[in-house]
Amino acid sequence: MDHWPTTLPVKVPSTALFTDQYELTMLQAALRAGTAHRRSVFEVFTRRLPEGRRYGVVAGTGRVLDAVASFRFEPEMLDFLDRQEVVDGPTLDWLATYRFTGSVRGYPEGEVYFPGSPILTVEGSFAECVLLETVVLSILNHDSAVAAAASRMAVAAGDRPLMEMGARRTHELGAVAAARAAYVGGFSATSDLAAGFRYGIPTVGTSAHAFTLLHDTERDAFTAQVASLGRSTTLLVDTYDVAEAVRAAVEIAGPELGAVRIDSGDLLVVAHEVRRQLDELGATGTRIVVTSDLDEYAIASLAAAPVDAYGVGTQLVTGSGHPTCSMVYKLVARADGDDPEAPLRPVAKKSLGGKLSVAGVKWAARPVDERGVAEAEVIGTGEIPEELADRRLGVELVRNGEPVGAEPLSAARERHVSAREGLPLSARQLSRGEPVLPTRYLTPLA
Amino acid sequence: MDHWPTTLPVKVPSTALFTDQYELTMLQAALRAGTAHRRSVFEVFTRRLPEGRRYGVVAGTGRVLDAVASFRFEPEMLDFLDRQEVVDGPTLDWLATYRFTGSVRGYPEGEVYFPGSPILTVEGSFAECVLLETVVLSILNHDSAVAAAASRMAVAAGDRPLMEMGARRTHELGAVAAARAAYVGGFSATSDLAAGFRYGIPTVGTSAHAFTLLHDTERDAFTAQVASLGRSTTLLVDTYDVAEAVRAAVEIAGPELGAVRIDSGDLLVVAHEVRRQLDELGATGTRIVVTSDLDEYAIASLAAAPVDAYGVGTQLVTGSGHPTCSMVYKLVARADGDDPEAPLRPVAKKSLGGKLSVAGVKWAARPVDERGVAEAEVIGTGEIPEELADRRLGVELVRNGEPVGAEPLSAARERHVSAREGLPLSARQLSRGEPVLPTRYLTPLA
Repeated sequence: MDHWPTTLPVKVPSTALFTDQYELTMLQAALRAGTAHRRSVFEVFTRRLPEGRRYGVVAGTGRVLDAVASFRFEPEMLDFLDRQEVVDGPTLDWLATYRFTGSVRGYPEGEVYFPGSPILTVEGSFAECVLLETVVLSILNHDSAVAAAASRMAVAAGDRPLMEMGARRTHELGAVAAARAAYVGGFSATSDLAAGFRYGIPTVGTSAHAFTLLHDTERDAFTAQVASLGRSTTLLVDTYDVAEAVRAAVEIAGPELGAVRIDSGDLLVVAHEVRRQLDELGATGTRIVVTSDLDEYAIASLAAAPVDAYGVGTQLVTGSGHPTCSMVYKLVARADGDDPEAPLRPVAKKSLGGKLSVAGVKWAARPVDERGVAEAEVIGTGEIPEELADRRLGVELVRNGEPVGAEPLSAARERHVSAREGLPLSARQLSRGEPVLPTRYLTPLA
Repeated sequence: MDHWPTTLPVKVPSTALFTDQYELTMLQAALRAGTAHRRSVFEVFTRRLPEGRRYGVVAGTGRVLDAVASFRFEPEMLDFLDRQEVVDGPTLDWLATYRFTGSVRGYPEGEVYFPGSPILTVEGSFAECVLLETVVLSILNHDSAVAAAASRMAVAAGDRPLMEMGARRTHELGAVAAARAAYVGGFSATSDLAAGFRYGIPTVGTSAHAFTLLHDTERDAFTAQVASLGRSTTLLVDTYDVAEAVRAAVEIAGPELGAVRIDSGDLLVVAHEVRRQLDELGATGTRIVVTSDLDEYAIASLAAAPVDAYGVGTQLVTGSGHPTCSMVYKLVARADGDDPEAPLRPVAKKSLGGKLSVAGVKWAARPVDERGVAEAEVIGTGEIPEELADRRLGVELVRNGEPVGAEPLSAARERHVSAREGLPLSARQLSRGEPVLPTRYLTPLA
């Protein structure tokens, strides 16, 4: 899978304003107070998985690397911040030369995560790290939500391919990221041309009901489509009467017809009827694609039906009931002064009423039992115990401002399969339940 | 509210690939069959509102106008389509000069809608109209979902201002569109700087817990913030002990302190305690802002609490349980041949199993009773009856390819308030129920 060299139409020239205003006002106050350059460590984690979910899926890491690299305040943006009096002159001067020079470690893309997993650790001066909060969370919260839904659908679909078709149900650029995250989570293709263009994801698509309605008869439409797209095309057979359409489809395309698509009705019943009819007509190699309001449960319910591929839209791009993750970006440690060598002091919010955090810079490891199955998500601060060192999670993503963690999207996709396969079998259950791994802290809660 | 002249960083050079592949393969097949230039009318509508919702809110219309205007196939895009063999040479040639030359009518932005409302009507050749399906639906489905949630929250908040703070919970560019839709739905401000930059929406924000944790004491943090941002700033008082924080806040900023923000705990209880404490300290003008996981129900439950403003994130940008609308883009009429003057034949999908459409080009009107309250969403084809003509919905948005419906975002925001106020009082109920207006078809269902 190639990565297209051009970046149109989905790359923006700078990501620096995908930022909540308070990041900049905090920067201003810290610059003035002389605390802005204290070495700091921020951590991305989530306190819980969406209700009933067994595991989370990290997605968007590659996009985070792009976003950090293009986080620059262009003159027009500085003019805007100046005119709107968002921050003062000294802060604008500081922003004008902003480049992230710190380091980022994190769970690699496609890895699974659990409550408390230190998904990303960002280290540098307070000033340079705090600015990245909003865009890092936007990307990870959105993309991981879609990837988690995709992964569950992939489990339900087994060996049958899944096609992402949700662009029309979500923001036009969110759709591109959703197609990317779905690919990480196990989908094979997307209908979204921009996702093919930007990320090299295979694209698919043939025709909609409008094409049939445009023509004087359904046979005219099928004839036109086969003439143009070939016999291996997929004909949509539910505009009028499905049985008549299947008959016409095979008559026009011959038994070499690639596939028929069913987009309405009781898919279980209709798929069986269509399969029988296709077989009777000799079109035993013609596949059946279904695409009507599917989610992981509907896909699972079709496991015994003669369906060859699924197209999924709404429920995929909206995270199947959980359109966002609850990842947060919290300061977990910082130095007492400006000295870059000063020791880091663990810090955490302490107020009552929930939203507690665990102070300190963390490591995480996922030990396995004798069969190689993961046993727990173990999290600690300080030195990692020797017996856990070879099960350590997390890789270097940015070193002194330089992205070092870039990889082809296919690597993330493959990693997700292995990560999921390393979990206890209950990870494959779609029913609601607890996370399949317990989170164990080797360090007392702060 | 000014519209900033620059378009960085959230405008993309072309919207033409925010398109499902099947739009292009249908085009190819229709070009070859000689049916691509049949005059056609597509309609955007929804078969139902999200479960329990009383009305929908049209948002994104202004973005649709932008998207249509920048729907151009740049050479790099054509190269991509060629290399990937998405479409053939004649189709690429046709795409190279693509400009939408048709017309669009629709409900203006901020208007409310109901099941069956003809929200947008796109007329032109099949070829030029079919290509717009995906991007038009992406925009309207996303933006209208956020605007509907915003409107419910605005009803719940009454006169208290609402601030959009959800950027970190959704795709970074989805967030910009969400801030815009929230503004249409009744929010007053956003934390998202890109939304301020692109759409001129007022931006807000002061500090997060990280700022307090960066400093050696909470008092140091408050002192630094007040020194930099002034006494009118908002101090976040729930990092450690709220009562101590409020005492320190007023001591440091004086009774001129602008506001305190509470982001955790039982907001109802805490708001009362903080109000009492502020008043005792003489800070009677200091406002209380709350921001913890709010939705329209939580906002409503705080109606009697001494809260002055709400910041809303996750539930707003994810449509409060309904992150997308179910709007579709359906061919409802087309000519039998290429003659641009040929009469239009109503068409509709007829298959069993739901997903039925009503054929024909529609008008819609919303008659009112003697008190001026809307009575029904009346939809028909053909000539609109004289007695409904002055209650007709829908305006001209694009005429022969030229956008004519552009307006300031504030116009959509104001229109939404009037549209909602014209509905029966039950529109203000947050509880689940039926749409507040029945949809009446003056034309028999096709």
